[in-house]
Amino acid sequence: MAGDTFRIPLLTVIGVGLIGGSLARALREAGVVDRIIGVGRSRDSLDAALDAGIIDEATTDAGGAVRDADVVVIAAPLAATDAVLGRIARALPAKAVVTDVGSVKQSVVEAARARLGDALPAFVPAHPVAGSEQSGPAASSASLFRGHTVILSPLDETRLQAVEDVRRMWEATGADVLMMSAAEHDQILAAVSHLPHVAAYAIVDLLARIGDVDELFGLAGGGFRDFTRIASSEGTMWRDICLANRDALVPLMRQYSEALAGLADSLERGDGEALLRVFRHARDSRHRGLANQPHRPPGGSTGRP
Amino acid sequence: MAGDTFRIPLLTVIGVGLIGGSLARALREAGVVDRIIGVGRSRDSLDAALDAGIIDEATTDAGGAVRDADVVVIAAPLAATDAVLGRIARALPAKAVVTDVGSVKQSVVEAARARLGDALPAFVPAHPVAGSEQSGPAASSASLFRGHTVILSPLDETRLQAVEDVRRMWEATGADVLMMSAAEHDQILAAVSHLPHVAAYAIVDLLARIGDVDELFGLAGGGFRDFTRIASSEGTMWRDICLANRDALVPLMRQYSEALAGLADSLERGDGEALLRVFRHARDSRHRGLANQPHRPPGGSTGRP
Repeated sequence: MAGDTFRIPLLTVIGVGLIGGSLARALREAGVVDRIIGVGRSRDSLDAALDAGIIDEATTDAGGAVRDADVVVIAAPLAATDAVLGRIARALPAKAVVTDVGSVKQSVVEAARARLGDALPAFVPAHPVAGSEQSGPAASSASLFRGHTVILSPLDETRLQAVEDVRRMWEATGADVLMMSAAEHDQILAAVSHLPHVAAYAIVDLLARIGDVDELFGLAGGGFRDFTRIASSEGTMWRDICLANRDALVPLMRQYSEALAGLADSLERGDGEALLRVFRHARDSRHRGLANQPHRPPGGSTGRP
Repeated sequence: MAGDTFRIPLLTVIGVGLIGGSLARALREAGVVDRIIGVGRSRDSLDAALDAGIIDEATTDAGGAVRDADVVVIAAPLAATDAVLGRIARALPAKAVVTDVGSVKQSVVEAARARLGDALPAFVPAHPVAGSEQSGPAASSASLFRGHTVILSPLDETRLQAVEDVRRMWEATGADVLMMSAAEHDQILAAVSHLPHVAAYAIVDLLARIGDVDELFGLAGGGFRDFTRIASSEGTMWRDICLANRDALVPLMRQYSEALAGLADSLERGDGEALLRVFRHARDSRHRGLANQPHRPPGGSTGRP
């Protein structure tokens, strides 16, 4: 499969939702894939993906679908990864490269170690840091990953060629590929994605408990709308992400909670200087940190950053 | 000034920045104002406003500028309101109606009671819940308030005709005018605006303290970008808003801090159900609360929601 011309004769995508569907579309548009089998739990979403030309063949049998695959992408919900790995482990051909798209990587690595057996060196844990407010195959787009970062977190055991293949696959979608350890990935994503989601959920939950939702949100400006957009993300998915990454996330949540309590203390005693230090540091840091980042499409990623 | 045809022969705008400039532009476009005097601290921004045709006359002397005014709008920074009221109180003609645009209302009411003396019944505390990421007269726009809410919080002493005039002035800009007490205003805005700003500042400050800004924010998706946009707001303005509204804001900050600590406890013991309850309640509440709201222009309001 490797070589100067990168090709995937048979791609199997397990989970043809926003991410799996967008990857299939992007690879087809890039002309690097010959045939795509989609695996799903429900016939309805599979038929929709077939009708839209996202996949060439549809099945609910993950084991059967990987038997001749060159690349297998697990794009099922994070909490299903362990079960999916268990279902495909014995059916994988020797040539197959296996990768995933989960928002947490250490839990996926653990599952792979437990399930994949001899196929472990074929596994390349990956996370495309991209998404959309929508979900499902109908929302998928060939351009979803363009200019976005995809993080690869290979294991010590992972074959170098498997890493190279997954890197080239993602580069074919227009994504920028970055390598880091699963532990580092989980620490960083806890900070820039998982904590903000929990914080947005918590603030909306709090306001809806203490006030009248219609009255409160009727007076909310665009700032509130932006700030809470990620609280519109799907709850079960974020519960699973939080549970999978709790070792990194819990300490951050506590630090954030304490920082807010400290600011409340400062404000209570009228210490405007303490507030200003935090506000200015935040503003400057955000400007500095985002200044050199590529432009992201408006609307941003709520679904699964 | 009242009557069937609403007209403002002479409007004095104290502080010709984003809000003051946009109000001047909107009223001129609506054809309800004959002449506009702009008051500022610096000649530079006044000249810019003159050159742009936002105002007809410019001065740094607030007292002189209100001497013949029919309507006086205080659009200076919130923390300057007390000083501005002191400077204009003795110069106000009997016919003048005075209003402001401050993000906190009880502190403004206190200042008005302390400074305005006999002119108190002419004062209509107001807050246009609109803004933009930009600031200054160059960013001002005649359409800034269209479809946005303006809250009026008249005092018991306020003349009914003054309230009516300020209502008609804001309606001429395309805004929807809502009446509520200053206390209710401050409580609601603490929830939907001031707390979110503090929360966004606090999370960006925390992340920039514990990690490398370039690395962290380089991996941030659109969700993080949206979530933290309000942390790009001007720090001194938000320090002043927080200080002015601390009675309402401090208890909310404490409740939010405790909610996050509680969620951290739930997550630490693996209680996914507790997380899911909060996440779902937040998502449902946001959808319900924002479902019937008018569309806000994209980009939202960071500057001064």
